[in-house]
Amino acid sequence: MQDLIDRFKAGETRALARLISMLENEDPQHEEILKQLFYRTGQAYVVGFTGSPGAGKSSLVDQVIKHLRKEGQTVGVIAVDPTSPFTGGALLGDRIRMQEHALDKGVFIRSMGTRGSLGGLAKTTKDVVKAMDAFGFNWVIIETVGVGQAELDIMHVADTTVVVLTPGAGDAIQTIKAGIMEIADVFAVNKCDLPGADKVAAEVEIMLDQQCDQVGWRPPVKLVSSLTGQGIADLVAAIKTHRQHLEDNSLLSLKRRERIRSEALEIVNYKWQQKILKQINIPGRLNDQLERVMNKEIDPYTAADFILDYVVSGPTGK
Amino acid sequence: MQDLIDRFKAGETRALARLISMLENEDPQHEEILKQLFYRTGQAYVVGFTGSPGAGKSSLVDQVIKHLRKEGQTVGVIAVDPTSPFTGGALLGDRIRMQEHALDKGVFIRSMGTRGSLGGLAKTTKDVVKAMDAFGFNWVIIETVGVGQAELDIMHVADTTVVVLTPGAGDAIQTIKAGIMEIADVFAVNKCDLPGADKVAAEVEIMLDQQCDQVGWRPPVKLVSSLTGQGIADLVAAIKTHRQHLEDNSLLSLKRRERIRSEALEIVNYKWQQKILKQINIPGRLNDQLERVMNKEIDPYTAADFILDYVVSGPTGK
Repeated sequence: MQDLIDRFKAGETRALARLISMLENEDPQHEEILKQLFYRTGQAYVVGFTGSPGAGKSSLVDQVIKHLRKEGQTVGVIAVDPTSPFTGGALLGDRIRMQEHALDKGVFIRSMGTRGSLGGLAKTTKDVVKAMDAFGFNWVIIETVGVGQAELDIMHVADTTVVVLTPGAGDAIQTIKAGIMEIADVFAVNKCDLPGADKVAAEVEIMLDQQCDQVGWRPPVKLVSSLTGQGIADLVAAIKTHRQHLEDNSLLSLKRRERIRSEALEIVNYKWQQKILKQINIPGRLNDQLERVMNKEIDPYTAADFILDYVVSGPTGK
Repeated sequence: MQDLIDRFKAGETRALARLISMLENEDPQHEEILKQLFYRTGQAYVVGFTGSPGAGKSSLVDQVIKHLRKEGQTVGVIAVDPTSPFTGGALLGDRIRMQEHALDKGVFIRSMGTRGSLGGLAKTTKDVVKAMDAFGFNWVIIETVGVGQAELDIMHVADTTVVVLTPGAGDAIQTIKAGIMEIADVFAVNKCDLPGADKVAAEVEIMLDQQCDQVGWRPPVKLVSSLTGQGIADLVAAIKTHRQHLEDNSLLSLKRRERIRSEALEIVNYKWQQKILKQINIPGRLNDQLERVMNKEIDPYTAADFILDYVVSGPTGK
């Protein structure tokens, strides 16, 4: 494995792809990999794109990639596609996209499905961001369907979050419902050539007027067209302005330190889960407690106290 | 508080409302309340209705309530509305609904917002289901926007899950993406008077044909209209058939026992979280470890091992 990491450090794209697969599959060595990558992270600027299905996020991200590539910037992209077991795997569109950039070593696109566990998606995505960051890309872009808690969790790793809207019917209102307006640093109203784009932009501005907790940064609303490329330069400029804002106010390092802290705590919880699952799955007193709850002989709170005490203090008590 | 629980046990609706508020607000006594309610739970049949915003879930649930009331059944309803801080509180529509049923003691409707923490929504909703179940309603109906992990978590408490679709453009495809097709026991194609309803139903049937892991139950697809009431009797019959299927195969008690088990484990985790948060928030060695991770002096995995060991084995080691 050290050989693989060495090739990764030497900038070999295939080593990156291989390491990402190992992270995705929770390879037994994934912890060792992340330990080694940790010290190389924190260089890339991470931008999240989120919005309802059909908002044109993929083609918008493609335009942003092209723009950044013209500036000589390298870009890693993670397309999170919570595909259901019904359809399985990544969508055709993503495969086409990947081919398009296949010859450009400055772009690396990775599609991720959920493969069953939605709960694990956020963790895996964060790990893949770390791999791309450690690999040395200047930018890491995450693209998700902004519909749920897993997606909101993913967005916590972004330094700048772009919420993509369209002039579709009721789109803005649905976005509010899904709870993703709060995480927007920049709004992009895509398909701005369609009628109603100005109206959506105006609606967002009104909502921003009503929002009281804006401290120093009011999310700009940019009209863009991922079809024609209109407004893309403006959108990238807005992202950079937000980055500058974070850096000027020491918010970027604060945000990142806070993120590292909460990730360390998440790892503690993950290890705790593993520990307790191991003990629960062997026959014995803990299992008996759960049996008794299921038989309604004791309530789950009393059982939980017992189990916690048992695992923390050991079978004999403190 | 015992007085309140006694009035609850005597069937006083105001006591139910009061207890639910205490559960929602994580009142210091909420654990004691749930301990006492636990032995009274497991009587109600729990049905979940989920689907994208605008699918007409609320009015469909209203029709189902009316149908069940005609049969003399009592119904508790929990409308989960993940309203964002932008809009705040429950929507006007829900308040109107509640007034409509205000004089009927056999119906109790409760709207829930997220009040900040989406992560806590599933837990609170489950607690409210328990309160309604313990109160003695024959049926408990949960209504959620089926868009995310929190909503999927909520649906785990339902004995039967109804996924509501509409002939809207791309609706079926979006539903697959959101990952809620897998949890459907019954499909309801609402607004069946609109063109395209048959097409949606056919699409769902095709997807069901492709799904391989159907063990003994193939979700029926029902065309309904929450506007005219068309198909509602049929829908309720399908829900009852699913219930019969679960009971005939001992799946209902198995499902419920499994649910109690995983809830007990969730409580263990919750208590663990409280324990570790308490220790993390006081200055000392655990906090120092996190500081060192944030300064990139050690990696988060090494720190996590230390913290877990410290909390489990105590400051001096085992």
